Amino acid sequence: MSADLDKLPSRDLLAFQLFDWLDTGSGEERETLMAMIDATQRVAAEAFLPHYRQGDIEEPRLEADGVHVLPAIHQAMALYAQMGLFGASFPEELGGLGLSCTASLAIHAGFAAANVSTAGYPMLTAANARLIAAFGTPAQVDRFARPQIEGRWFGTMCLSEPQAGSSLGDIRTRAVADGEDELGGRYRLSGNKMWISAGDQNVSENIVHLVLAKIAQQDGGLPEGSKGISLFIVPKILPDGTRNDLAVAGLNHKMGFRGTANCLLNFGEGAGAVGWRVGGEGQGLAQMFMMMNEARISVGMGAAALAYRGYRQSLRYAQERLQGRAVGVRNGAPIPIFNHPDVRRMLLQQKAYAEGALALCLYCARLVDQGGEDAETLLALLTPVAKSWPSEFGLIANDLAIQVHGGYGYTRDFDVEQLWRDNRLNPIHEGTTGIQAIDLLGRKILLSDGRPLALLRDRIGDTAGRAMETAEWAPAAAALLDYWRHVEDVVAGLRALGGAEAYDDATLFLRAFGHGVLAWLWLDQVLHARGHADSAMESGVAFACRFFFESELPQADAWLRIVGQHGDLARTMPDEAFA
Amino acid sequence: MSADLDKLPSRDLLAFQLFDWLDTGSGEERETLMAMIDATQRVAAEAFLPHYRQGDIEEPRLEADGVHVLPAIHQAMALYAQMGLFGASFPEELGGLGLSCTASLAIHAGFAAANVSTAGYPMLTAANARLIAAFGTPAQVDRFARPQIEGRWFGTMCLSEPQAGSSLGDIRTRAVADGEDELGGRYRLSGNKMWISAGDQNVSENIVHLVLAKIAQQDGGLPEGSKGISLFIVPKILPDGTRNDLAVAGLNHKMGFRGTANCLLNFGEGAGAVGWRVGGEGQGLAQMFMMMNEARISVGMGAAALAYRGYRQSLRYAQERLQGRAVGVRNGAPIPIFNHPDVRRMLLQQKAYAEGALALCLYCARLVDQGGEDAETLLALLTPVAKSWPSEFGLIANDLAIQVHGGYGYTRDFDVEQLWRDNRLNPIHEGTTGIQAIDLLGRKILLSDGRPLALLRDRIGDTAGRAMETAEWAPAAAALLDYWRHVEDVVAGLRALGGAEAYDDATLFLRAFGHGVLAWLWLDQVLHARGHADSAMESGVAFACRFFFESELPQADAWLRIVGQHGDLARTMPDEAFA
Repeated sequence: MSADLDKLPSRDLLAFQLFDWLDTGSGEERETLMAMIDATQRVAAEAFLPHYRQGDIEEPRLEADGVHVLPAIHQAMALYAQMGLFGASFPEELGGLGLSCTASLAIHAGFAAANVSTAGYPMLTAANARLIAAFGTPAQVDRFARPQIEGRWFGTMCLSEPQAGSSLGDIRTRAVADGEDELGGRYRLSGNKMWISAGDQNVSENIVHLVLAKIAQQDGGLPEGSKGISLFIVPKILPDGTRNDLAVAGLNHKMGFRGTANCLLNFGEGAGAVGWRVGGEGQGLAQMFMMMNEARISVGMGAAALAYRGYRQSLRYAQERLQGRAVGVRNGAPIPIFNHPDVRRMLLQQKAYAEGALALCLYCARLVDQGGEDAETLLALLTPVAKSWPSEFGLIANDLAIQVHGGYGYTRDFDVEQLWRDNRLNPIHEGTTGIQAIDLLGRKILLSDGRPLALLRDRIGDTAGRAMETAEWAPAAAALLDYWRHVEDVVAGLRALGGAEAYDDATLFLRAFGHGVLAWLWLDQVLHARGHADSAMESGVAFACRFFFESELPQADAWLRIVGQHGDLARTMPDEAFA
Repeated sequence: MSADLDKLPSRDLLAFQLFDWLDTGSGEERETLMAMIDATQRVAAEAFLPHYRQGDIEEPRLEADGVHVLPAIHQAMALYAQMGLFGASFPEELGGLGLSCTASLAIHAGFAAANVSTAGYPMLTAANARLIAAFGTPAQVDRFARPQIEGRWFGTMCLSEPQAGSSLGDIRTRAVADGEDELGGRYRLSGNKMWISAGDQNVSENIVHLVLAKIAQQDGGLPEGSKGISLFIVPKILPDGTRNDLAVAGLNHKMGFRGTANCLLNFGEGAGAVGWRVGGEGQGLAQMFMMMNEARISVGMGAAALAYRGYRQSLRYAQERLQGRAVGVRNGAPIPIFNHPDVRRMLLQQKAYAEGALALCLYCARLVDQGGEDAETLLALLTPVAKSWPSEFGLIANDLAIQVHGGYGYTRDFDVEQLWRDNRLNPIHEGTTGIQAIDLLGRKILLSDGRPLALLRDRIGDTAGRAMETAEWAPAAAALLDYWRHVEDVVAGLRALGGAEAYDDATLFLRAFGHGVLAWLWLDQVLHARGHADSAMESGVAFACRFFFESELPQADAWLRIVGQHGDLARTMPDEAFA
């Protein structure tokens, strides 16, 4: 295998998770999918990977005619479009390839591992087109979704404003009704949008901005809160070929993830940017969040891919780098650092995090494909975990990848420092970890009817039941059930506590909940890996699973106990005592 | 207070830790020291802080005549020298200021918070001069230490080589005897040294390299292992004014800490670099490590200072940034994010880490000043903790500082991303965390006579005894004693296990040990903060201490249990299962 392909999720691992574990597709479909994965990974290795470092050094730059990105990104996008991948998971009648969500996410993982910044452009474009396909009129779909599915136009999501990051109810972008045409209700938009990834670039023929804004009331005021938010299609170039009234006000200079241009956009500095409403008035946030879930799983997969690549690169480094001797041995030649227990521990921990995160994201994609009420309910519960767990623990994995490299890992001669910087965005964008935590504990648990958690417990019970039938994994199954009883006790305590206080440790709860999910998924995988034809695969899954139960779950249990204590220190600490 | 001084350790906090807690100096000395801290912090704010970002952007560059650094670094060093600070902790008879180690470390904290890269130059210079002052002949001290104490010459430590990072026994730099002169035994050195911080610059008149090398034997071979290592003074400019035979072969391009030039040095490309031996043959490593302890505490303090600055900057940001509302509140104006419990938790955690790390380093410096066998033994035990704990947890604090800033924290418009990148070096240089762990568990505990840990337990028992007499802190005292009994049980188990296996989880042991030390130091501080004239100070210490006991120690207890299980997963995992 080439050294480059070695940085992408291995085909053996993907085959195990997709087929042996998640039972995706039938015989022939599997062959087709693996051929697709092979083909796309070659493109990822040849057209995305080589400019990984260059994209970090030569950031997008703002010139008089807009944002310019690396020529290598143009070439990568052209190849990506040629393969039809912008439409990977769209139905054939819309010009897509008709792949399942699981298959297209597995393909995305390869591109994200190769170059997470460049992979950001099609990821956002697909999310945009899917939203229009779901909620737009046939004319809107034809005009704005299809060119994105073909990869000729790219898309963005314009949510945040300088004064409204996480609190979208406070947005001030204004939409004034301006009649109606064949593309639907027409509006003139004005306002400033912040943190717009791919907000401008010189790659695609046009850019379709999906913009959250509030429709001005009769008195000229804007409705309060998030219920007044509507969604608008605002193309950079209007259907008549003229430029819409929107401008790039600036670029954000980020610590990492630099290949994806991140823009401050001003809409309507003149007569107002022309936009067409998608769906009903006031439906903007609900529609956006339905699609945001897809984006959140993609973010999680990006984080998983970065973690995986760091794992592979530090593994190879450890196998080649000679340094030191075994404890107690004074003479003889230096040995590969791979043989030092502490280095092996750092590698195993990375494996458990990275491959676990990959499994989590694919599991969620499988739920999308399965559909139906139960799968949707479970998906909604797991989405904040799929977004945040790979982001938080993938970052720790990348930190370990640096540490394995020692001083070399701190230099820009090796990729691991960039992986770490790139991954640091993931706990922030598309909803910070704190926001995910409130979503999980609030909407999905305390404010729900209890069904989401009950559904999850059923699946965990099922896995544990099967593990109980084996001598080897029965103790882990018992530990898993104990852990989830603990989770339920903590939830019951928080429910009884009620009020705002219940959310004091929401973030730690999310973390502990995520570890419980990962322990379950590792145990479930291990049951499917037993007797695998590839004994190294069986063994790798088994060791990662045992590591998770021996070294991770006991820590998570401590987190649960802390949450269960309902401590109020941070909230009650006097303001002046922080000084 | 100016916004700039607000980024440096607050005088109230330093006064509390230095005087109320550590009982440093008497009344008048305290006033003098505080005046000194005020004066040096002004210099730090005016001459070190302003080029913090610039030093990151404009890295040192290698030109034909050597390495060039920012003009601002020249100016900062000139001011630093004018104040006599290169000689801060040297005795007056050597031209120093005669400050205690504690005082000079408190002063260093201000410079490190302002600009950790620029502060690296004098930090290394002082460590170099102290080594020569301790082991050199009077002629060597006059010739090579005094100009450094005056700040005219700078110093370096040349240990690592491309093939020998952590395993110094494998170094290949060769020293061939070349007679003797008034400066001692003279040698010709040849070899390559890697990772040399401040290895070249255009600031000081001369550079004194302290070089570890092996003296060639009669047969031309080099002695094996670390016992054959000697220490040599190798100046860039020889006493006769000619250039010594050494060259900068390259600069390392780091992720952070960029203001400190990091060089690959080639010694003896021609007739051999002239060097004078310091101390006896084969004493090199022992001498170096005596001084390395000082460098390790300084590294810890640098990490603590970065953590502290991130805490302060994210605190100020949180107080000013308006976003969202309290849970359950839908209307009204956005509130400062400082009022959100999750943000307050991230701030309190930073405070507990940053101020705890500062306390740990000052405590160790106080042991240096106290001297005597007990203090030295305890210092040796705590040094790996003082190096690693602030490095590991200060980095987590900086990660939280980014998260408090949200998307803004990921841009280079705010300092927190640079603080995080800068701090990432600290778990690597001057001995990685893994190396510190083996030092703690091996040399300081399992291979010692047990006295170091017994001494520590005495001090902990003393603190707990005093806490037991208070109603408020008796439960924490009991938890602390429980925790340390657990540590001792784990140590006994590892001792019984014996062999290399005992070190499998040395890194996790170090982490848990460090948390136990920090819990102790927080409890000890809280007892000295009771009834403090400044009620905000008393309250701040109390909340940080309670946080540490409620939220940190339970996690550390889980780490101890994991270590105590003597798991062998990483060691026994088949090599091919990592793939």
